[in-house]
Amino acid sequence: MSGLLSGFFVSEIFLTHGVRLQHTANCALILHTMSSLGIVTPQSMHFAAPLALQSGAAIAEYTLTYETYGSLNAARSNAVLVCHALNASHHVAGVYADQPKNAGWWDNMVGPGKALDTNQFFVIGVNNLGSCFGSTGPMHTNPATGKPYGAVFPVVTVEDWVNAQALLADALGISQFAAVMGGSLGGMQALAWSIMYPARLRHCIIIASTPTLSAQNIAFNDVARQAILTDPDFHGGDYYAHGVVPKNGLSVARMIGHITYLSDDDMAEKFGRGLRNGAYQFSFGVDFEIESYLRYQGLKFSEYFDANTYLLITKALDYFDPARLCGGDLTCALANTQAQFLLVSFSTDWRFAPARSREMVQALVNNKRRVTYAEIDAPHGHDAFLLEDPRYHNLVRAYYERVARECA
Amino acid sequence: MSGLLSGFFVSEIFLTHGVRLQHTANCALILHTMSSLGIVTPQSMHFAAPLALQSGAAIAEYTLTYETYGSLNAARSNAVLVCHALNASHHVAGVYADQPKNAGWWDNMVGPGKALDTNQFFVIGVNNLGSCFGSTGPMHTNPATGKPYGAVFPVVTVEDWVNAQALLADALGISQFAAVMGGSLGGMQALAWSIMYPARLRHCIIIASTPTLSAQNIAFNDVARQAILTDPDFHGGDYYAHGVVPKNGLSVARMIGHITYLSDDDMAEKFGRGLRNGAYQFSFGVDFEIESYLRYQGLKFSEYFDANTYLLITKALDYFDPARLCGGDLTCALANTQAQFLLVSFSTDWRFAPARSREMVQALVNNKRRVTYAEIDAPHGHDAFLLEDPRYHNLVRAYYERVARECA
Repeated sequence: MSGLLSGFFVSEIFLTHGVRLQHTANCALILHTMSSLGIVTPQSMHFAAPLALQSGAAIAEYTLTYETYGSLNAARSNAVLVCHALNASHHVAGVYADQPKNAGWWDNMVGPGKALDTNQFFVIGVNNLGSCFGSTGPMHTNPATGKPYGAVFPVVTVEDWVNAQALLADALGISQFAAVMGGSLGGMQALAWSIMYPARLRHCIIIASTPTLSAQNIAFNDVARQAILTDPDFHGGDYYAHGVVPKNGLSVARMIGHITYLSDDDMAEKFGRGLRNGAYQFSFGVDFEIESYLRYQGLKFSEYFDANTYLLITKALDYFDPARLCGGDLTCALANTQAQFLLVSFSTDWRFAPARSREMVQALVNNKRRVTYAEIDAPHGHDAFLLEDPRYHNLVRAYYERVARECA
Repeated sequence: MSGLLSGFFVSEIFLTHGVRLQHTANCALILHTMSSLGIVTPQSMHFAAPLALQSGAAIAEYTLTYETYGSLNAARSNAVLVCHALNASHHVAGVYADQPKNAGWWDNMVGPGKALDTNQFFVIGVNNLGSCFGSTGPMHTNPATGKPYGAVFPVVTVEDWVNAQALLADALGISQFAAVMGGSLGGMQALAWSIMYPARLRHCIIIASTPTLSAQNIAFNDVARQAILTDPDFHGGDYYAHGVVPKNGLSVARMIGHITYLSDDDMAEKFGRGLRNGAYQFSFGVDFEIESYLRYQGLKFSEYFDANTYLLITKALDYFDPARLCGGDLTCALANTQAQFLLVSFSTDWRFAPARSREMVQALVNNKRRVTYAEIDAPHGHDAFLLEDPRYHNLVRAYYERVARECA
């Protein structure tokens, strides 16, 4: 895909050093030549030294699966780490040779000429520990027992992931990232990077995220976990040995999650009260389009995702709370950050509402950090961060153009 | 309880015949003498004639369990029907002799001197068909087989319930109610009464309700149903014969529902990120107070509620759509109503948001019905309709005082 016109209009709200101003720029018409990365290949790196975890436990040895796009410049100053959210992976962009339709989860954002331009940046996607997509996780063999980890895979946190990502960066010879970027749970990792390794990133890009889960967020996660934990096919997490997977529980968990990713309005718009077969069935099968859609999403997810991974990742979400060690004071928690920040939220995201982004913006402003903040008026709820929206993508593009000028 | 002072202040928003005005009345200090009904006794009535259902099926014979409070006046003009919501019953107010702590679900609203004053009105609470609390439901014996109905209990709708309630009213010699009243799903029944039996109620009181479930509402219901339907102890609905109940599925269903009854803010206020044991456990047990609370609610519910009833009631919610036969036009659907209306919604109710009440108000106003509408600024989400709030209760009280004057 090339020659696509974009960049007509960028509407941003900047909230910088306590001054809120509405900035509307009528950008000149720019012809961006965008294309897909084409075929990409995952790589992996083994780490033989144990990784100490926040829980006090450790992973004795582990492998991280990752992908890189673009080229690291001579100054090693143009690396961007893209952190993934709940059900994504290191496969951020491009396709695999044997799976030409399996485009990376942020392929609309990352590629040659795209908002995060791989002609300018060396982009790294890393699969997090505990995942089911490559890096060491519950499905893999526990060297201590010779059997799959299953239930004994340790609970890992956002901070644990960041520590592992930093070790990968060390191994790749990257002492400082031009930017660390992520959406949702990925945004939590970007925020954690800015706190834990303040000198190792110049920019921190946090999209559709939050400094902590609310009680309601935790509640939804816990119901999802209960659905998995009480599925008889879960077998206490050691279902691999039984040749089954807790599909029903995982499917219900996904359905619950999926509802929270969409906005009420978007769901009304897409599905409304539309009937699958034109009339009420007076049974407990599918009546409404929304039921059909959600059941399909649940089923599909249960066929490719690992239940133990789901448990681990929801727990990492629940536990993330950087202000906790500062008695709940986020300003204090962000006092040592050095990066510049871009935060983006979406108006109809009720999972991680704009107000949650504003908490981070306020805490950064309190610390006199340089912050750009945009609230994008988008109908798609939390999912908006994964979708193509010219205002959103042009904003990120404009930001990265600034980052690129600094790399040159 | 007597001598409680109330009625200090009533703030109402009236939206009548298209004119919206803010009406603030500083009521004189009135000493209301409120007391509980004390001991009440459920009654039951058997109906030997089949009830034709909206689905085309029929219930061959059935029993309705009900309670009455207060006295029917000589003119038979002071009867009020109170319709119940999802997990409630005919036990609206008072206590049972052998269960002195089991107060009715709307005991704060209904009783001598209360907002719905049983000194003035003859109040009837009826358990709906398909329930597990007395009236004929899936747990009862199917006369055709001699076994519990289980999975073959027919899907019943709000309109079916209203038809059964009307037959009970006939049997009790009540040709016209002073008012039919309900909250949430109970409000749907009140609305259906105004459409189906327009001459049989003078007032229709609809609280925290909606003219239809949204796609998101249906989605939550369907996930809850999936949790039940996929529980191996469900046995296709015939679990009675297996001596088990699908407790896990029902518990998850209740947890999902419960999240939607509370507001995000209320949950944050009550539970926040409070930890049950002061520190992260790094396991999948209980970490947060909200988890403990919800799991307890789920467990408790699964011990007293019937899973088949849960399925039936969620389906009745999903199917309710009075505008459906008018091509989606609610104004058309309400054209034949004759009652006067009171509608109340609560600001933080995101299950049935104020906007949904306003749809009904607008449709009634379009039909030049007399409508009183109040949006109560309350933090408790959907649950607010069950809680004691002076502004809310005084509003209902003031409305019923008008209804009572008409009965005299």
